[in-house]
Amino acid sequence: MIGMSKAVFYHAGCPVCVDAEQVVLGYLDSAKVTTEVVHLGTDRNRIAEAEKAGIQSVPALVIDGNVYHINFGASLEDVKKG
Amino acid sequence: MIGMSKAVFYHAGCPVCVDAEQVVLGYLDSAKVTTEVVHLGTDRNRIAEAEKAGIQSVPALVIDGNVYHINFGASLEDVKKG
Repeated sequence: MIGMSKAVFYHAGCPVCVDAEQVVLGYLDSAKVTTEVVHLGTDRNRIAEAEKAGIQSVPALVIDGNVYHINFGASLEDVKKG
Repeated sequence: MIGMSKAVFYHAGCPVCVDAEQVVLGYLDSAKVTTEVVHLGTDRNRIAEAEKAGIQSVPALVIDGNVYHINFGASLEDVKKG
């Protein structure tokens, strides 16, 4: 029913992010989705990409273009100020 | 590394909820986690349980006692007013 999808988990190292990462990496089905983790605090050249995807806060998961904000760790604006 | 976990996805039938449900049911690894979906709009006797779990808004996913609010569909307070 679902082909191989691409999930990108954006975070900024905050405690809420680390907690959410456990779910994303621990429970997503690796047979259905490949997962990439992006730390916007260190990978700052990917902030523009996150913004373009529609991310307003981290942690956030983007699957096939759909954005899922999971709890609230930090606003993307604050991450940009970094 | 992770034993069988129990995930409960609480929603209230809102568009944001339905969208998030696709991820929860479509991408969670059924080998690691069993999933239950609770519609608080119809299963109103489970609102107290959701509140006790720490849910503030729906859609929300509770895995082994940890609450993950996914995007924002409706506040639990509004669901309670129903």
